[in-house]
This record gives sequence, C-alpha cells and structure tokens, in this order.
Amino acid sequence: MKKLINAPENVLYESLDGFAAAHEDTITLAAGHKFIRRKTLTPGKVALISGGGAGHEPLHAGFVGRGMLDAACPGQIFTSPTPDQIAEAIKDVDTGAGSLLIVKNYEGDVMNFEMAAELADGQVMTVLVDDDVAVAKSTYSIGRRGVAGTLVVEKLVGAAAEEGRTLEELHALGQAVNSRTRSMGVALGSCTVPAAGSPTFTLADDEMEMGVGIHGEPGRRRVKLRSADAVAAELVESIIEDLRPSNGRGCLLFVNGFGGTPLVELYLMVNAAKRILCGHGISVTRFLTGSYVTSLEMAGCSITLTELDTEFTRLWDAPVRTAALNWS
Amino acid sequence: MKKLINAPENVLYESLDGFAAAHEDTITLAAGHKFIRRKTLTPGKVALISGGGAGHEPLHAGFVGRGMLDAACPGQIFTSPTPDQIAEAIKDVDTGAGSLLIVKNYEGDVMNFEMAAELADGQVMTVLVDDDVAVAKSTYSIGRRGVAGTLVVEKLVGAAAEEGRTLEELHALGQAVNSRTRSMGVALGSCTVPAAGSPTFTLADDEMEMGVGIHGEPGRRRVKLRSADAVAAELVESIIEDLRPSNGRGCLLFVNGFGGTPLVELYLMVNAAKRILCGHGISVTRFLTGSYVTSLEMAGCSITLTELDTEFTRLWDAPVRTAALNWS
Repeated sequence: MKKLINAPENVLYESLDGFAAAHEDTITLAAGHKFIRRKTLTPGKVALISGGGAGHEPLHAGFVGRGMLDAACPGQIFTSPTPDQIAEAIKDVDTGAGSLLIVKNYEGDVMNFEMAAELADGQVMTVLVDDDVAVAKSTYSIGRRGVAGTLVVEKLVGAAAEEGRTLEELHALGQAVNSRTRSMGVALGSCTVPAAGSPTFTLADDEMEMGVGIHGEPGRRRVKLRSADAVAAELVESIIEDLRPSNGRGCLLFVNGFGGTPLVELYLMVNAAKRILCGHGISVTRFLTGSYVTSLEMAGCSITLTELDTEFTRLWDAPVRTAALNWS
Repeated sequence: MKKLINAPENVLYESLDGFAAAHEDTITLAAGHKFIRRKTLTPGKVALISGGGAGHEPLHAGFVGRGMLDAACPGQIFTSPTPDQIAEAIKDVDTGAGSLLIVKNYEGDVMNFEMAAELADGQVMTVLVDDDVAVAKSTYSIGRRGVAGTLVVEKLVGAAAEEGRTLEELHALGQAVNSRTRSMGVALGSCTVPAAGSPTFTLADDEMEMGVGIHGEPGRRRVKLRSADAVAAELVESIIEDLRPSNGRGCLLFVNGFGGTPLVELYLMVNAAKRILCGHGISVTRFLTGSYVTSLEMAGCSITLTELDTEFTRLWDAPVRTAALNWS
C-alpha cells in the first residue's frame, strides 16, 4: 500500500486536524474529532447536518459553511459515524429551529442517523439521498445508493435554509431535489482502504466497472475498456431513462471524479456528456466539474444530472462559502 | 492505458471544449483551441498571460479570470504551446498597457514565449518561475524547474494587476514573489501521457521519488516507502534551507496534489507540514490544499512555501474568480 500516511489507524484524525487548521477561518473541529461545524451559527436557522464514512472528501466536511451544511460527522474511512457523534453535532448546532439530517442511503448511515435523531431534544427530520441508478440494491444498501447527488441536495437545501425556511419546507425541498437528481459512475481502477491495506476490488487492465458504487461496490456489469464517448453514452442514457426529464427544461450536469482521474479527462467527459444530452433535446444550463464525491484514489468518474427549474437554479447560484465550494 | 478518452490525439481539444462549455460565463476559447481568455477584458489593465503543456490542470486555464490571468495558452500534454498561439493571445488580450508573460522555467516554454514576445507589437515583459528546490537543473530545464509556485505568482501578480499597476511594477512583483517561493514534490506512482501510452517512469511497490518534477522528471533520489511525517520533513526542510525565511514572518503553505492522491492524504500532509514548520518557528498564516498543479494522474504531492509580508497577504486574500480558484 503506497500512501502519504503515518499509521492506518490515525489517517482520519490527522487529516481532520490538517483540515481544521487550513480552514479555521470558517469551521471548527469538535473535541474528539467528532464533527466539523461552522464557526458561526445563525440563530433561528434550521441546522443542516450530514456525514458518513471518510474517504469521500471533500464530501462532507468540505461542504460545511455559509450556504451549505452546519455540521458534518465523519466516520472512519468507508464506515458510518456513530450515533453519539451525530447526536453531539445536533445538540451543538441546533439553535432552536430544528435539524435536518441529509443521509446517504447506506444501512449503517441510516441506522446511526436514526438513533441520533431519537436521542435529540429538538425537532429532527431526515432527507435520504438515493440518486444512484446503477443498481436497485447494493452491498451496503437496501434500495438505491446515495452518491454524488448528495452534493446537489446539500447545496440547494443549504441555500434555502439561509433564506429562513422552516424544517418542514426544507425537508420537502430535499426530497424534491433528490427526486429530480440521478447519478451513475464508472471505475477504471480500485482504491485501497488504509486499514485493509489491499485494493477493494480488482479490474483487469482492459476492464471497467459500469455502475460502480463509491465504496467500490459492484455495478451493473464489467465491460471491456471503451471510449469516453461510449462510457458517457451509457451513463447518460441510464440516467435519462430513469429521470425522464421534462422537455425543454434545463439541467445541471455534474461530472464528478472519484479521486484518481485527472481534470483533463473529467472535462473531456463534460464535452461528451453535453453532446449526448443535446442529442436528447436536454440543455445543460449549469455545470460542476471536479473531484467532489470521491472514493479515495479510485480512478473513474460519475455523472449526475439534476433537472432544474427556476427555483432550483436560483438556489444553485446562491452564494456558498465552504472549503470545497465557494462562490458569490 | 486506462483513461476516459476517445483518441489520444484529441484529448486536449475535447477537454478544452468541455472546459469552455462549463465556464462560458467567465471565459472563452479562441478559434483553433489556441488559448483560453477572459470573456471581458479591463481596458488599461496590464494583460497577464501564461501557458505551458497541458496535463497540469487546472493550471493554467483554470486560473483565467478576474484577479488572475487574462489568457492561458495550452500546449499538447507536457508540450510547450507554439509561439504562434502565444502571439495571438498577446494580440487578443493586450488592451494597450502591455503584457506580462508568466513562464515556468522549461526550455521549450522559455523559447516559445520569447519568440512570441518578439512578434508582439505592444510592450511585453516576462517573469520566469523556478521555484523547485529539488534539483539545480533537470531534463527539460536549464536551472531550476517552475512548478506549483507558479500558482502563487499568478495569484499575487493577478491581484496587483487589477489594482492598475504598471507593467514594470508587476514584473518586479512577479520576480519578488518567485524569489520568496520554494517548492518540492514527491511521487508515489507515475502518470501515463496518452500519446505515449505507457507510464512515464516506473517505481517499485516500495519506492518513492523524492524531488520529482511535474512531468515525472527524476528528483533527488529514490527512497524506500516512508511515513508521511518523514516525507513532509524532507520536503519542508529542503525548502526552508533554501528559502531561509525571516524569523517571525508568516507563510503560505500550499499542499498540492499531483492528480492521483486523495484529499484525505493531502490534508494529512498539511497537518504534518504545519507541525514541522511550527518547530522551526515559522507560522502558517495562509493555506491552500488541493490538486492545482498536477501531472495527470501521478500519485504524490508537492509542498510550496511563500514567505508572506503584509502586501503579499493582502494580494493573496484579494478576490479571485476563476474556474479553479474562487473567493471574494
């Protein structure tokens, strides 16, 4: 295993310490490395809390800040955070307007966020994200997996929370965003979890995993190496078939790198995906390109589409100030 | 070779088309894929132009926009842009106040930017960036190589250019920033140039290349796999020994991923580097962490230190609006 680490058991905490130092103007790290939270909370605003296993950085800690999350609870790599961590985060950032939990659909996450919600004093609601069209159920999930679309839910709901919407309104919005968002990914190579020390899966030199999950879970099928255009076509067609976007409505195209794929390839995929979408009469009105929802150093990418209306577009464009997404 | 591409010879152009589509609100792509430029120029402002071989994305195209570059000329992967490309960019973005070329110190780049400057009608000056302390000369360079410190030069000079400074002032500033900036990198694995089809170099499973260049050029020495702390110590000590920062002055710590190393490791390196700097009485007052000056999917990272004074800090903090760096 070749990694810039000291000891496998310390990777998460040392990385969080570095993250907290680098972004101390906007976030703070809670005692015991339990969660990352905004330095300054807005009293009366609904608190948005997410989290999940580490290894997907910048998700979720990189999305804590004005316009997105109030707190993020990192579990060990590819491991759910504990109910205790999440409960402490809720207690810390709920200023009285309640908490909305944004949870990717994995059994461990769902269970632990649920237990934390039961421990909370204030009102708590949960949005479950399950945007991955690749498979109907998977290694760690009952039903579809939550993948890169989680970023879109966190961004749009985060912007709406800044406007002072109620917990119920934000819950409904989160569900609406999830219902208009679909993703699918492809892996060209595996990643290695430090504590495991060997690759999560193996692919032959001429193979790709179509529909891979963000923990290296199996996808739909293993195929022979193919062109970027062919890959983009399969991902986009699978998404469209499932999303069935309305005619003439614009969409957000989010090409997400898994960690080991360079930007030059991701932008090439943007070009390919845009052309295929155009061919279906779907216009791309917003773009996001980069490695935002990763699987350590896995090679490959995912495509996420969110069907935009005027409100979704406005919320996407709203100012955001986090470590990983920053615009005004 | 496993990549999300169609044909090796089209990688750059298809990627630039995707980049131009994704960022059409702020930049435009010139005919013939010759350069990326700001959509809107500021008349009377000195034009900042950079460029170099592709494969280092987001450098340089990702740094075109308000507060940084006016234009970036991409060569083929790891290949200098032609004098013709650069000359056309100068002609296009010089609004009368002259052009400052920011050039990484590689023979091909130096020669082609020089030829372009000779073709230009307006006044042209050049800042050469040579921040890499690893080796005194290298495969493609006479003297030190220009690496991730280029981002710092482009950011600080870019901010100063927005203030209306003259070409001579910006030239002097660029040289001052370069003289207060040092970098050194480490590779854990190679990258593959699409046109070559096989890895640029090979490292055994238990080896690292200390002082590697951003095209996979040899560094100081090949060592056995070691801890992140030991790697950070060697990089930071080499930089400090050369930079000899003044006592009590703050610095910018820029931990740069080469493309194949995940953020969780980069932040762990931030933590390690900061602790070592603290031990030398050097306080880190600004941070940048991410894969900004890459070598395709090469695994590894570089550390860059810039000694900051009040002016440098103010210019670093100044608003920037580009595809890859964006703050206000």
